[in-house]
Amino acid sequence: MFKGGVIMDVVNAEQAQIAEKAGAVAVMALERVPSDIRAEGGVARMSDPILIQGILDVATIPVMAKVRIGHFAEAQILEALEVDYIDESEVLTPADPWNHVDKSKFKVPFVCGATGLGEALRRISEGAAMIRTKGEAGTGNVIEAVRHMRKINEEIAEVVKASEAKLKKLAKEYRVPLALLKEVKKLKKLPVVNFAAGGIATPADASLMMQLGCDGVFVGSGIFKSSDPAKRARAIVEAVNHYDDPAVLAKVSAGLGDAMKGIEIEELEVLMAKRGW
Amino acid sequence: MFKGGVIMDVVNAEQAQIAEKAGAVAVMALERVPSDIRAEGGVARMSDPILIQGILDVATIPVMAKVRIGHFAEAQILEALEVDYIDESEVLTPADPWNHVDKSKFKVPFVCGATGLGEALRRISEGAAMIRTKGEAGTGNVIEAVRHMRKINEEIAEVVKASEAKLKKLAKEYRVPLALLKEVKKLKKLPVVNFAAGGIATPADASLMMQLGCDGVFVGSGIFKSSDPAKRARAIVEAVNHYDDPAVLAKVSAGLGDAMKGIEIEELEVLMAKRGW
Repeated sequence: MFKGGVIMDVVNAEQAQIAEKAGAVAVMALERVPSDIRAEGGVARMSDPILIQGILDVATIPVMAKVRIGHFAEAQILEALEVDYIDESEVLTPADPWNHVDKSKFKVPFVCGATGLGEALRRISEGAAMIRTKGEAGTGNVIEAVRHMRKINEEIAEVVKASEAKLKKLAKEYRVPLALLKEVKKLKKLPVVNFAAGGIATPADASLMMQLGCDGVFVGSGIFKSSDPAKRARAIVEAVNHYDDPAVLAKVSAGLGDAMKGIEIEELEVLMAKRGW
Repeated sequence: MFKGGVIMDVVNAEQAQIAEKAGAVAVMALERVPSDIRAEGGVARMSDPILIQGILDVATIPVMAKVRIGHFAEAQILEALEVDYIDESEVLTPADPWNHVDKSKFKVPFVCGATGLGEALRRISEGAAMIRTKGEAGTGNVIEAVRHMRKINEEIAEVVKASEAKLKKLAKEYRVPLALLKEVKKLKKLPVVNFAAGGIATPADASLMMQLGCDGVFVGSGIFKSSDPAKRARAIVEAVNHYDDPAVLAKVSAGLGDAMKGIEIEELEVLMAKRGW
């Protein structure tokens, strides 16, 4: 599902059409992109159903929307609206970070963020159909997405070479069923797709994440906070399609105008990736 | 390679020609000099390939360009553009400071920063062909370049007089192959050239660094943030050529106009030299 694709944050129908024209495989409908959520502060919640419906009305590709971590009532509302995917997202203010939504109770599939293998497997055992890194959204800074992806890769490598006893120990440590760890050992990867998300702002960033083993890429503020969103959106789609071809990457990286300005992680007061566990 | 030379930061073709005319042995093509990166904040990334190509088109001397620490996809793009050297640089926002680029996978040579011998040798064992100090770029303040150069010199002196057992201990501490330390002991210096970089703003600064044992000098904001870049650029080249001749240094230091204003290190929030390890 969505493998090899780019999923773009959009805040209105016009942006949804730009994203679709650029080759996005899905759009994430939300009121404010993460960099605006950071800048404005306050509590960030599920978007107005009117905004989501407006995007559902124009999009021919799947539409995702976000709920607060643990806010199953928001998820029930999005399911009633017939969105195609729900993102239980640390970009919104958490409602119940100790109890993520029981996703097995929903028909609509969920995507959830993870900073490591344990977190990814907890979400999968709750019913998540898709995982993404929790890289610091709204920063335009890819460092945290890289950190999470490398951590998941290292931890999967550890599982692959683990003995039965070690797997049992890891299941306990991660608080996940042993069967799930056995599946990871057998598949040598997560049993669902794993996308990169958080801080991706350039075609080079998208290629970097794909080369680190992601199945696709979410781009949030990176597109519509740049000087030429339509051109940059197309370039990032091209970069994901040709992530291992430096000549294509060089070509699509040229003349894109200003990337989103971004923020140094050291300067942040709120680390969204630390929300949930 | 570049020994006894000056390498200058340039942000456009016109500056590249000024640098070349002044006697630079290479230019570093980038969108913003470090002092502007500091002043503007946000995330600093690889420059637009169009800017780099524009400088490649006019320069007859080698052209270098910068990638974020650990961002091997940016490095692949610069290699595709056929730049002559890649600087894996802490002046840009790090993408993966825990895993520097595996430079052995590239044909294009790399230069990397170092604050001490361990860091320099880690970069060399990853394939770096050239080392430079990590002095605080964009400050016009030579203090950190001096600190790094003196530290590397002291640590090399320690290696030169070290026993086999001590070398083994250092190899472990520095996390580098023992053979590399043996080579340093034999050569009594790094096995690659070591340039001064970061904060060099005057002919006297350039001479100071050369007398501390550097093989050459990078000058960033120091030239094009001064009141007479062409004259200062020539003066710094002269100072490197005659670094041990105070009469020449006195002459070329005269009437240069204002040097870049610069910044006290104590006032800085972000220390670029601390990026990477």
